[in-house]
Amino acid sequence: MSLTAELGTSTAFDLGPARALSCRECGHETPLAAEFACTQCFGPLEVAYDFGTVTRASIEAGPRNIWRYRHLLPVPADVQEHPNTEPGLTRLIKADRLGAALGIRNLWIKDDTGNPTHSFKDRVVAVALAAARELGFKVLCCPSTGNLANAVAAAAARAGWDSVVLIPASLEQAKVLTTAVYGGTLLAVDGNYDDVNRLATELAAEHEDWAFVNVNVRPYYAEGSKTLGFEIAEQLGWRLPEQVVVPVASGSQLTKVDKGFAEFGKLGLVEPTPYKVFGAQATGCSPVAKAFAEGHDVITPVRPDTIARSLAIGNPADGPYVLDAVRRTGGAVEHVTDEEVVEGIRLLARTEGVFAETAGGVTVATTKKLVESGQLDPDAETVLLITGDGLKTLDAVSGQVGPTATVPASSAAVRNALADRD
Amino acid sequence: MSLTAELGTSTAFDLGPARALSCRECGHETPLAAEFACTQCFGPLEVAYDFGTVTRASIEAGPRNIWRYRHLLPVPADVQEHPNTEPGLTRLIKADRLGAALGIRNLWIKDDTGNPTHSFKDRVVAVALAAARELGFKVLCCPSTGNLANAVAAAAARAGWDSVVLIPASLEQAKVLTTAVYGGTLLAVDGNYDDVNRLATELAAEHEDWAFVNVNVRPYYAEGSKTLGFEIAEQLGWRLPEQVVVPVASGSQLTKVDKGFAEFGKLGLVEPTPYKVFGAQATGCSPVAKAFAEGHDVITPVRPDTIARSLAIGNPADGPYVLDAVRRTGGAVEHVTDEEVVEGIRLLARTEGVFAETAGGVTVATTKKLVESGQLDPDAETVLLITGDGLKTLDAVSGQVGPTATVPASSAAVRNALADRD
Repeated sequence: MSLTAELGTSTAFDLGPARALSCRECGHETPLAAEFACTQCFGPLEVAYDFGTVTRASIEAGPRNIWRYRHLLPVPADVQEHPNTEPGLTRLIKADRLGAALGIRNLWIKDDTGNPTHSFKDRVVAVALAAARELGFKVLCCPSTGNLANAVAAAAARAGWDSVVLIPASLEQAKVLTTAVYGGTLLAVDGNYDDVNRLATELAAEHEDWAFVNVNVRPYYAEGSKTLGFEIAEQLGWRLPEQVVVPVASGSQLTKVDKGFAEFGKLGLVEPTPYKVFGAQATGCSPVAKAFAEGHDVITPVRPDTIARSLAIGNPADGPYVLDAVRRTGGAVEHVTDEEVVEGIRLLARTEGVFAETAGGVTVATTKKLVESGQLDPDAETVLLITGDGLKTLDAVSGQVGPTATVPASSAAVRNALADRD
Repeated sequence: MSLTAELGTSTAFDLGPARALSCRECGHETPLAAEFACTQCFGPLEVAYDFGTVTRASIEAGPRNIWRYRHLLPVPADVQEHPNTEPGLTRLIKADRLGAALGIRNLWIKDDTGNPTHSFKDRVVAVALAAARELGFKVLCCPSTGNLANAVAAAAARAGWDSVVLIPASLEQAKVLTTAVYGGTLLAVDGNYDDVNRLATELAAEHEDWAFVNVNVRPYYAEGSKTLGFEIAEQLGWRLPEQVVVPVASGSQLTKVDKGFAEFGKLGLVEPTPYKVFGAQATGCSPVAKAFAEGHDVITPVRPDTIARSLAIGNPADGPYVLDAVRRTGGAVEHVTDEEVVEGIRLLARTEGVFAETAGGVTVATTKKLVESGQLDPDAETVLLITGDGLKTLDAVSGQVGPTATVPASSAAVRNALADRD
């Protein structure tokens, strides 16, 4: 699990404000290294910081991407000097038409489809790559069936690193293409996603210079999601929203958005006003929503069965921390059916011109449900996270939308077709 | 052709710095209106301006999208107050690895895949929508087979406008979905793209409140491409590059990038240093490259036959102006085969992690050819325009890229597979 011995001691690492790794369960601290589980209690490790002085002006003077927040991330101060991707500072758009449809007065969409490979994974992978370089790794790796594979292969290509991406051999051709085009090593594994994940852990232990972004450098990787929280606050004009709705897969993203808001408050970059964090899941993979509804602190794993494949993690590692953040802030976790997911995708596209992947449909449909059930305050300022692109999950809307009419090439035929429609 | 009578007189229109429409052939000026051809000589109309004072600081204080340049576009000063998309300020990235592969010392990529619907068309459509609103139109329309259809349907959805998008009935299902999802009127027309285009012109004449972005509001629409030039100059640190390579379909984009550079120079926003403009075409649709090579001033139309469908305009309206800009600045127009296009896509993805549509492959491959033939100076700072996304043209790389190997789920199998590869 530990590569510290091979890769050098923590004092050799410049990971900016990162001071140590700290266990989220027992609080035990360990030097910065490629570790992800506490040697005392096997709890998950998280980055602990000593932040210097960070001001609005210093952030605003930075580049127009996540590296403007480099002094709040576990990356070297000179992170921009090394080739990497430049994700972030994606659109935060006022969503008045979607708001009207949902009955929410003051609604925003954080549209992360504008990232280099069109999902929020570019954020976490960019941070993982920067940290992995400093930790001495040479190869960027992951197991994935979609967005993460794209992001790892693209970031490694741009950095000039080798990459090793593991996918189930049964993956659809289109998803194979969108990773293979970047030219790294792409291994189709005979087995299901669980087999692929297990293989990744095995390979991470055997190859000392392979950084599996979501395994052996996970503590650094996960911090990249804080930038979603940072950007929302900065783009709102240096203040926090009152409510935020986040899709839940492993749960990491939700906890890091919360952490981002909290850090901005503690650093005095925003007024630490109260906010509520809501989680969104698909019914076919809703272990966190179930635990929330039943008042449990632990998650009972499920076997995923939903079209929202980017959220289909049946045993979410950060589930307990999601429950904690949601309960602490007064939010909730809800779930929606696959039919509602498709309706959510279509509603968002029709009202705001944003075409989201299935996870975005989950977020929109869950928000609708939360309003209808009175759990989300329709009068409070609300931000929805749209974290991936509809171009990658076309199957979800296939057969659901199509041409209004097929007409001969004459204006009279068009008039007739439109009259029939009205 | 003129809707001025129905829609009011030009004095009623607030289109910011736009003063009149001016004929690019005879210079005749006509009041701002929904016109696109000169009443004197039938030449194409272009927007003429009276620019006020525009400074670097005033631009930098603007929003992080094309509306930061609103005082240089034919849009009302309050353009941001009306719902519209927020394209622009996409990444300009240093492309050292692609530069090394091409033998260019100082290379940049302007990556317009980060726009709302992932192509530069979001820029021109956003400007067309803003102008169309002021001109009194109520419906946003276009004939298109791809990127433009996506951009029009999405922008109309976000603005709450009706849209009418015309496509050939034979269009692939995936391209139908990516427009239909936005919920406007999508008409599949029995006929080829020429039939669809002809129908659009007919409909534009018959429906006084229908704005066909690339027909009756084309002079305004086309100005949106200037923002590519503006952003390149601003993102380079307020200076012009020495060389720029632009894909050529109608040719409008190339002429507007040139115009953007020239306007920045005239307004004192940058030093008016010399630059060369290069055009890139696919061999299967290279009428401008042919005219350039033969020293002609007029374009002989061709029947397109190339995988670069977003560039497949056989009779490019702005071809003569492309020739003028290229010759005036000392550039060139070249063309590459479909095989080279695919190689260009793959080279860009492998070296920079940017997955471009076929038009991007044309730009990269043409740049390679221009260097090899000595037409492009490898020591001069060069910017390549990547204007659309590979997710929309997956067919181009299908069968060309795939998994490195298929392996059983064991680390020994992975080792063997990698050893075989080395």
